[in-house]
Amino acid sequence: MVPAERLGCGMATSLAKRARIIRTQGIVYRNIIKKQQPCVYAPPACGILSTMNPLEHIRHTLAHLLAQSVTELHPNAQLTLGPAIDNGFYYDIDFGTEKISDADLPKIEECMRKLLPTWNEFSAEEITKDAALARFANPYKAELINEIAGRGEKITAYTCGGFTDLCRGEHAEHPAKDIAPDSFKLDRVAGAYWRGDEKNPMLTRIYGLAFDTKEALDAYLTQRNEAEKRDHKKLGRELKLFTISPLVGAGLPLLQPRGAIIRREIEEYLWQLHKDKEYSRVWTPHLAKEALYETSGHAAKFGDELFRVSGKDEKFFMKPMNCPHHMQIFADNHFSYRDMPVRYFEPATVYRDEKTGQLAGLTRVRSITQDDGHLFCRVSQINEEVTTIVSIISEFYTTMNMMEGYWVSLSVRDADKSKYLGSDEVWNTAEEALESAARANNLNYKRVEGEATFYGPKLDFMFKDAIGRQWQLATIQCDFNLPERFDLSFINEKGEKERPVVIHRAISGSLERFMGILIEHTAGAFPLWLAPVQARVLPVSEKHVAYAKEVSDALKAADVRVDIDDANESLGKKIRAAKTEKIPYLLVVGDKEIESKSVSVDSRDHGKLDAFSVTDFITRATEEIRTRK
Amino acid sequence: MVPAERLGCGMATSLAKRARIIRTQGIVYRNIIKKQQPCVYAPPACGILSTMNPLEHIRHTLAHLLAQSVTELHPNAQLTLGPAIDNGFYYDIDFGTEKISDADLPKIEECMRKLLPTWNEFSAEEITKDAALARFANPYKAELINEIAGRGEKITAYTCGGFTDLCRGEHAEHPAKDIAPDSFKLDRVAGAYWRGDEKNPMLTRIYGLAFDTKEALDAYLTQRNEAEKRDHKKLGRELKLFTISPLVGAGLPLLQPRGAIIRREIEEYLWQLHKDKEYSRVWTPHLAKEALYETSGHAAKFGDELFRVSGKDEKFFMKPMNCPHHMQIFADNHFSYRDMPVRYFEPATVYRDEKTGQLAGLTRVRSITQDDGHLFCRVSQINEEVTTIVSIISEFYTTMNMMEGYWVSLSVRDADKSKYLGSDEVWNTAEEALESAARANNLNYKRVEGEATFYGPKLDFMFKDAIGRQWQLATIQCDFNLPERFDLSFINEKGEKERPVVIHRAISGSLERFMGILIEHTAGAFPLWLAPVQARVLPVSEKHVAYAKEVSDALKAADVRVDIDDANESLGKKIRAAKTEKIPYLLVVGDKEIESKSVSVDSRDHGKLDAFSVTDFITRATEEIRTRK
Repeated sequence: MVPAERLGCGMATSLAKRARIIRTQGIVYRNIIKKQQPCVYAPPACGILSTMNPLEHIRHTLAHLLAQSVTELHPNAQLTLGPAIDNGFYYDIDFGTEKISDADLPKIEECMRKLLPTWNEFSAEEITKDAALARFANPYKAELINEIAGRGEKITAYTCGGFTDLCRGEHAEHPAKDIAPDSFKLDRVAGAYWRGDEKNPMLTRIYGLAFDTKEALDAYLTQRNEAEKRDHKKLGRELKLFTISPLVGAGLPLLQPRGAIIRREIEEYLWQLHKDKEYSRVWTPHLAKEALYETSGHAAKFGDELFRVSGKDEKFFMKPMNCPHHMQIFADNHFSYRDMPVRYFEPATVYRDEKTGQLAGLTRVRSITQDDGHLFCRVSQINEEVTTIVSIISEFYTTMNMMEGYWVSLSVRDADKSKYLGSDEVWNTAEEALESAARANNLNYKRVEGEATFYGPKLDFMFKDAIGRQWQLATIQCDFNLPERFDLSFINEKGEKERPVVIHRAISGSLERFMGILIEHTAGAFPLWLAPVQARVLPVSEKHVAYAKEVSDALKAADVRVDIDDANESLGKKIRAAKTEKIPYLLVVGDKEIESKSVSVDSRDHGKLDAFSVTDFITRATEEIRTRK
Repeated sequence: MVPAERLGCGMATSLAKRARIIRTQGIVYRNIIKKQQPCVYAPPACGILSTMNPLEHIRHTLAHLLAQSVTELHPNAQLTLGPAIDNGFYYDIDFGTEKISDADLPKIEECMRKLLPTWNEFSAEEITKDAALARFANPYKAELINEIAGRGEKITAYTCGGFTDLCRGEHAEHPAKDIAPDSFKLDRVAGAYWRGDEKNPMLTRIYGLAFDTKEALDAYLTQRNEAEKRDHKKLGRELKLFTISPLVGAGLPLLQPRGAIIRREIEEYLWQLHKDKEYSRVWTPHLAKEALYETSGHAAKFGDELFRVSGKDEKFFMKPMNCPHHMQIFADNHFSYRDMPVRYFEPATVYRDEKTGQLAGLTRVRSITQDDGHLFCRVSQINEEVTTIVSIISEFYTTMNMMEGYWVSLSVRDADKSKYLGSDEVWNTAEEALESAARANNLNYKRVEGEATFYGPKLDFMFKDAIGRQWQLATIQCDFNLPERFDLSFINEKGEKERPVVIHRAISGSLERFMGILIEHTAGAFPLWLAPVQARVLPVSEKHVAYAKEVSDALKAADVRVDIDDANESLGKKIRAAKTEKIPYLLVVGDKEIESKSVSVDSRDHGKLDAFSVTDFITRATEEIRTRK
């Protein structure tokens, strides 16, 4: 949910940036998934992103082909908008009273494949407003045409295979040759309001998938299928990790005991990593007076994403981030250069008001617990501090088994320096410090110009999950703005006030979102240190329950999370139940085990193991927990 | 801040209850200290609590005596209200344009002592409204007289020593004999709005102190003096524990690193105590839709103490307590009798909108972190569960060195059973369960009839701090109401739905308030396990810094919180600084210590100790930390 770049004062990822990252690195799963925010990215006419890559040309072309096929099969259908999107394309169509369902798609798809060989080349023409209104005679196109004309822009129409649509261009040049007929597929039908506004008529949206090759399409379908099986909302219910209560509200998940264990383990691990690096924990309340966010600039910037709080005699905002609070903690000290850097850490919940309809599970929420931290340091200290944070990130994601395939965006200024706050000298030092830390740590990084925030350069970390999806998670951001706004200072060697730099950093980004990703990454089979139940003792029969209790007590004493299944069921059934719950270790105890004071171990990850003495099993388990393997 | 009795659904302590507790047990420091909420408790006329004890009679009498003395010395002064309060009495007086300060008090006090021997006996008379208006001819008394008459009540006047005041009675019968002249003292002057309403004129309030004897007065003054020295707001600043930021708001303290350490240690200790008793942690967000609190009944009950939160398309309340959230976590399971009891623990911050002017430090706040927990059990399980909670409370307060002089109020129903929810049978079982747990644990308890909440009986724990002040802290409350409102159930042995009982419990009450009390209880000299800095290494000179670092690293590796004072100062100065910070162990290192790989230990609590090898000191310190001595 939390776009990591928002941790500081960042705005939501720009469309341009999103497009660029997608172009250079494939899909990055961020806060907002395009198809869930229809039309936002669709410019007038058929909705092409302004600078597309070849695959996006193909997707855009297929939206045209879909439109032609629909009009052939449903002559009364009124076309509206049809852009390329992540993984494919869609077209929003008014079918009038006709009801279209997924069952109609094969026929339309067949028609697309039949027409494709006739789509040899696109031709473009500029037409007058009146000609356009005459040619695309439906109220939706008319609305678009009037808007384009109103802006004084050219109106263009593109034709291929005898089918013409209002369009700005950017297609596959020779569709019949460029598009493999088995590389696309119509996906599903959904409802969508005209231009995304619920006050407008409801249209039928037909989604299509399209890739360069059939193999890429199949790989995507496999990944999606796998993602559905791993869906954290489904697993969250099955494994009793969290609860969404209609009385509490959407986007405000409540953690069941098992979910709370995972969250706390992650949080404690993060704290351990920071504590070792001389960070201090702080604690701040979940709201503050409006004045705090007026000073910080967030009130103006975050606008309607802030929850407004009315008290009897004062007005507040729920905190949308922790930085301004941490500035207040810093400010209430008289630090000297000898105290710098000052490092605060606080895993704290912030609140942002996303639209109800866009909320889901743990990944799109209103309560966002950032593993937040702020460093106050001198410009000359940025390098060393960033190196420390990089080492924390690297250790954390190695433990989470997510380092493979990661990459880092080193986001720096572009040529238009007027957009940025702070002197050239400070910027150069900060950019160099980030880059040299990236180099020193052998990071797989890419320098991306123009991606810095206005308040400083940053490093954004993208990690891949087990099914190849890429997520933007950790971030390290330099900030020259907030120390200025809050007039922060420390006393330097000359006895003068000196302004510190602030470094915002988050490792997991948000605990809710990270947990959601982790559930899908592990498919609910959490590593031992995170597993809510680490071991289950299964007595073979009633008479082995006492010994099972003895084993369980010994494990508990060693801080292993253990339970006993003493239900009156067959051993086989108990084992199956435990496997559904993805419990790492099953310890079967019967006559033989009682006699030898041992347990028969069935490991979720390694299958049946030799019998262990209870002590030896405890040694194995606690070591595995301690090392977070 | 948090009245413990509010943890569940309780209302604020009633005046009657407050009076009763004060009567039976002396002063209990709760949420609201009377003198900070003037007039709320003052009934019409001169403001007598309806049923007073002898000391309150004396205090009330002295308010009359003060009034007479003031009118003798300041003939134009207009009398308004003058009740007995905790520790003494006050009178609110309109001095017109005359300015009265603390410097005027000795003269008034002298006058009181002069008049006292003439105050032999009170006489009472009932008078008509007109006579009263004529006799007490000032607008304040007129307002009171009209109100009394409006309610159809009798108007009475009381006379002693030739001075008459509008009054309902309850005085020391023979003041000259009953009141020792050295057992009272005028205390200070303050401003107070007429009837506590800021729209009314500002009056001058003269506070007096009064006790049975001079010794009791002196003891109170000594205690108050000690309390001022220990004031947690002052120590909080000096020891850098917390920050109140005007930009964040009153009653919303931010914890500095050192304060956050103390809080976390307490929280972790509480969790340890609960984890051992098979509680599960849960996590819930800090707001919920209005519907949740309408269902629970809190929206109606808490009224304007709730912070209202407006989102884009939904309305919420910040949570004023955790119970309704925990009910939702329980409800999203299908529990059977085999799963009961279900025990949730969550140290969670709730928010209540106290008036800005009433907020101070950590003890009167808007952000209240309860060490909250809810148990769902069968009626037959109450006894055992309460016993477990009592054992947790007892262990916690023994560790905190606060068990001496504690007492427990077993709050049960009174004769008017219509006021209470739930069957006689369930009430009897619950009351018996609480009482038998109290007996089995040898609690120093008192059965107080009519003190139960409408939703169930409870045990409230009062503890004394180091200077003898009594605080209401822990609570255990049975609740038959919320399970009903949320229609909670589990499946019993017969396969039927059975309603669980909920037990609310809090051990420290609120972490903020408890920390405030603890700072004053320890005067900032925290026991080792809580001390933010547990040891400081003091190198004798520059050349000993390297060894100091070595010692410090060894301590850090053993998880001892340690720092080094390597400032270019004399050892004496460094030691004095460390003592001001109340650091438990000072480890002096010079040539001798380097040679013998040792440290010279100066203990805050035990003075200079023998030299320790570094390893031996670590053993001593870690053992002291582990056992929380």
